[in-house]
Amino acid sequence: MSHKILEGKKGIIFGALDDQSIAWKTAESVADAGGQFVLTNAPVALRMGTINALAEKTGAKVIAADATNVEDLNQLIDQSQEILGGKFDFILHSIGMSVNVRKGKHYTDLNHDWMAKGWDVSAVSFHKLMQSLYKKDAMNEWGSIVALSYIAAQRTFPNYNDMADNKAYLESIARSFGYFFGKDKKVRVNTISQSPTLTTAGKGVSGLDGFLNYAEKMSPLGNATAKECADYTVSLFSDYTRKVTLQNLYHDGGFSHVGVSQEVIDAITPKS
Amino acid sequence: MSHKILEGKKGIIFGALDDQSIAWKTAESVADAGGQFVLTNAPVALRMGTINALAEKTGAKVIAADATNVEDLNQLIDQSQEILGGKFDFILHSIGMSVNVRKGKHYTDLNHDWMAKGWDVSAVSFHKLMQSLYKKDAMNEWGSIVALSYIAAQRTFPNYNDMADNKAYLESIARSFGYFFGKDKKVRVNTISQSPTLTTAGKGVSGLDGFLNYAEKMSPLGNATAKECADYTVSLFSDYTRKVTLQNLYHDGGFSHVGVSQEVIDAITPKS
Amino acid sequence: MSHKILEGKKGIIFGALDDQSIAWKTAESVADAGGQFVLTNAPVALRMGTINALAEKTGAKVIAADATNVEDLNQLIDQSQEILGGKFDFILHSIGMSVNVRKGKHYTDLNHDWMAKGWDVSAVSFHKLMQSLYKKDAMNEWGSIVALSYIAAQRTFPNYNDMADNKAYLESIARSFGYFFGKDKKVRVNTISQSPTLTTAGKGVSGLDGFLNYAEKMSPLGNATAKECADYTVSLFSDYTRKVTLQNLYHDGGFSHVGVSQEVIDAITPKS
Amino acid sequence: MSHKILEGKKGIIFGALDDQSIAWKTAESVADAGGQFVLTNAPVALRMGTINALAEKTGAKVIAADATNVEDLNQLIDQSQEILGGKFDFILHSIGMSVNVRKGKHYTDLNHDWMAKGWDVSAVSFHKLMQSLYKKDAMNEWGSIVALSYIAAQRTFPNYNDMADNKAYLESIARSFGYFFGKDKKVRVNTISQSPTLTTAGKGVSGLDGFLNYAEKMSPLGNATAKECADYTVSLFSDYTRKVTLQNLYHDGGFSHVGVSQEVIDAITPKS
Repeated sequence: MSHKILEGKKGIIFGALDDQSIAWKTAESVADAGGQFVLTNAPVALRMGTINALAEKTGAKVIAADATNVEDLNQLIDQSQEILGGKFDFILHSIGMSVNVRKGKHYTDLNHDWMAKGWDVSAVSFHKLMQSLYKKDAMNEWGSIVALSYIAAQRTFPNYNDMADNKAYLESIARSFGYFFGKDKKVRVNTISQSPTLTTAGKGVSGLDGFLNYAEKMSPLGNATAKECADYTVSLFSDYTRKVTLQNLYHDGGFSHVGVSQEVIDAITPKS
Repeated sequence: MSHKILEGKKGIIFGALDDQSIAWKTAESVADAGGQFVLTNAPVALRMGTINALAEKTGAKVIAADATNVEDLNQLIDQSQEILGGKFDFILHSIGMSVNVRKGKHYTDLNHDWMAKGWDVSAVSFHKLMQSLYKKDAMNEWGSIVALSYIAAQRTFPNYNDMADNKAYLESIARSFGYFFGKDKKVRVNTISQSPTLTTAGKGVSGLDGFLNYAEKMSPLGNATAKECADYTVSLFSDYTRKVTLQNLYHDGGFSHVGVSQEVIDAITPKS
Repeated sequence: MSHKILEGKKGIIFGALDDQSIAWKTAESVADAGGQFVLTNAPVALRMGTINALAEKTGAKVIAADATNVEDLNQLIDQSQEILGGKFDFILHSIGMSVNVRKGKHYTDLNHDWMAKGWDVSAVSFHKLMQSLYKKDAMNEWGSIVALSYIAAQRTFPNYNDMADNKAYLESIARSFGYFFGKDKKVRVNTISQSPTLTTAGKGVSGLDGFLNYAEKMSPLGNATAKECADYTVSLFSDYTRKVTLQNLYHDGGFSHVGVSQEVIDAITPKS
Repeated sequence: MSHKILEGKKGIIFGALDDQSIAWKTAESVADAGGQFVLTNAPVALRMGTINALAEKTGAKVIAADATNVEDLNQLIDQSQEILGGKFDFILHSIGMSVNVRKGKHYTDLNHDWMAKGWDVSAVSFHKLMQSLYKKDAMNEWGSIVALSYIAAQRTFPNYNDMADNKAYLESIARSFGYFFGKDKKVRVNTISQSPTLTTAGKGVSGLDGFLNYAEKMSPLGNATAKECADYTVSLFSDYTRKVTLQNLYHDGGFSHVGVSQEVIDAITPKS
């Protein structure tokens, strides 16, 4: 789509790693829509990924920042305002990681230090980010902050592990902080609950293939792709959605409101 | 269970047809718990079913009443108060029927007159019943009114048809009327969202077997049986649950909060 | 906003009465975004309202249709396709009416014939409309159908009366039909749960002023206006939201996820 | 109530501080219902409170344990099994604390170390506890685990601060662990979302009086008391509720499903 619905809008995009990332696709869609932004990720992610290609393509600067570190966040905000020449209109938080998932620890045998680490990265980073933005008064009125979530925050999935709990905490932060950001600054805060997506990060979740297949069979419109999520995010950054706030918005081809589909029943029913 | 937790309590139980009915099991469990009640069903259901056996077993009287007919309801309430010697402490509404389901009409090809009939029987009857009880001031303080519902009110199931919409309306009536019944009479009103259950009525839903199998695989504790639903209903009629009202309570072995189970993923994943 | 994000898209807008209507504002916003449409309302509403002014302004034709009458709907669909030169990309259903509300009947003293009438107009009309569209294969792939709802479908409001139950039924139809419209035609179906809005229709709800005031105090961004709802609807008709379906989307300044606001606590707390 | 519906059942009750505590009332109600249990709390809480009076009254032993310390939990489980002579049938987790609330830090100015501390005490302790119970296979089949929560997990309340996020995480743990506890051990796990209650702990939440008043005006049956919560918990420990799992159960006089009450509208509407 080539409508410039984000013309004149500025922001920060967290979490683009490679061209499989939802954040990567979002950066492309935001650029297409006329938005300007700074790209950021953790130093180690910047080394592992290919973000410079994206920066070139979209005319964005890249700033390394550890999103669990308030000083890093403060510097990122200051430098980005300088680069962009003013306050922000949009923020994308696309950050999530569970050490327990990576190390293959089962949910009934978690390492609680790793649990704390994943919680800090995946959820608390969103509070830290918003607190820094709020204290620095760095958002324009009618700005829009979006974080990516997953339906495991509401219903359990056997392999999603402590990421489910992290997403529940993340969504709660969106509501809790969204209240104050709305009242005090006229800024909206929402989470998008996206279909399972085969990103480089997602590949860490064991059994993801089986689950993607299930979700595809369940969803009347099929799973939403990373590119479609990017487009949806653009609509949430735009002025068409100014009064949507404190919401967790399912972008999932209908998965969340299907009890079961005929395809799934057929697939589990033994042929006679 | 033989605890007399409903000793001294009186009520009306709608919808017992035969010994597969949830209402039938509820009557048995309520009697075991010391409650007294009148059994009622539509005249045609009384003829088709075997309710007299239940009446004998539980020492209950049977009164025929068409639950869509306000005069029938008024008579039922008057006569039941006479029989039981006072106001009611509990009511079970277990009534549901879709002509479109019975006649095999697809949801995209409904007969709207039949839709209206099913809506009247399955949902409006609950409003009519409560309105009659309310106007006659026929409930004791801290009484409990329960209607049976199904999760199709929240999520779509391919064969549940217009019963899904009827259950959504039923649950809304519980909230709407529950507000006034609570404020004005200290009576609580809730719906139980029960596992799919192989009752004589349920057999009309095409593909129910496949769906029961799916729900069984999804639910950590397996599907809840009619007998278990009866026991749960007893708890909601008892004094242990006095401040629970306006709720839709899932009694489903956990189905409602499972995104997918390992068993279902395994069943739909092709073996290599 | 002047982005032509609906360029080339065609549809039907139900329910514009006068310039207070959400449907009226939506027609204006859709026209601004480049969409073309037919306006429709019941014959009596067309006489009472000022729709011709809107038709002139937006270059739309007006066709009278009783949305509870399947023949009227079929004619409307046929004629609109002729006028617009093809299938539809968007539909807005903004229809609601309760005879019990109009006549001042309390929820504990409803007239059940009036209940049926309001249900037919406010909710079943949505099924009839989608069934006609589906049977005539009148929607383009990736089309979008939106109906307007209200949070009384989830929580009770003392004066919203049987409209609450109608909205619950309406939202259920959106899920039930959305499943088949998605699977079979790649069309999405959603409801918007809008802030209370002072439309000519809304004025019938007694005590609306007090409630508007409450909702304003509760919502971090304040109540959403009709114009903002129109803009949000445009985003849901656009290609930015293709995988959002079967959802009830709160457009309410955050009201739905606020337990209580400081303003409300202050207002009900006696000054010492 | 004097029905012995927990006769023969054994368990552990966390969090009784003084006779205002919900856990204290629960211990009394469980003892009345014939259940046997061990009482536990953090060493500091045992010193500050008056738990020995409760222990005497209910014939329970008291064991000090820091619920954030897995070794303490393991010892508690071992010793309790010895004392009670077998596995557990019920567990109550009634633990919550926010350093940020205690120290008066606003949600937009949180100390993140304190946030981590409150999260560990209020939420992670529930995972640690269940993980220890699971690994030691310390629960009987059809056992019941309950944790106390609050509706701030779903909707924001201005002074509830990071406890809202902690409760969201706690409820997510209930679902995540409930899945495995159900599948593997036939144990159910639920949270009760209780009315605001004036406990010694609750007194730390600033503005609680104003909020209690609001909740009382909103709830058709009024706020649920600690004693009523205790009785409800007994029903969830009993065999009447065996198939209820993975649920967050509102015990709140109807608050959760009221949009607004007439009393609240009247209170905020200026008198003419």
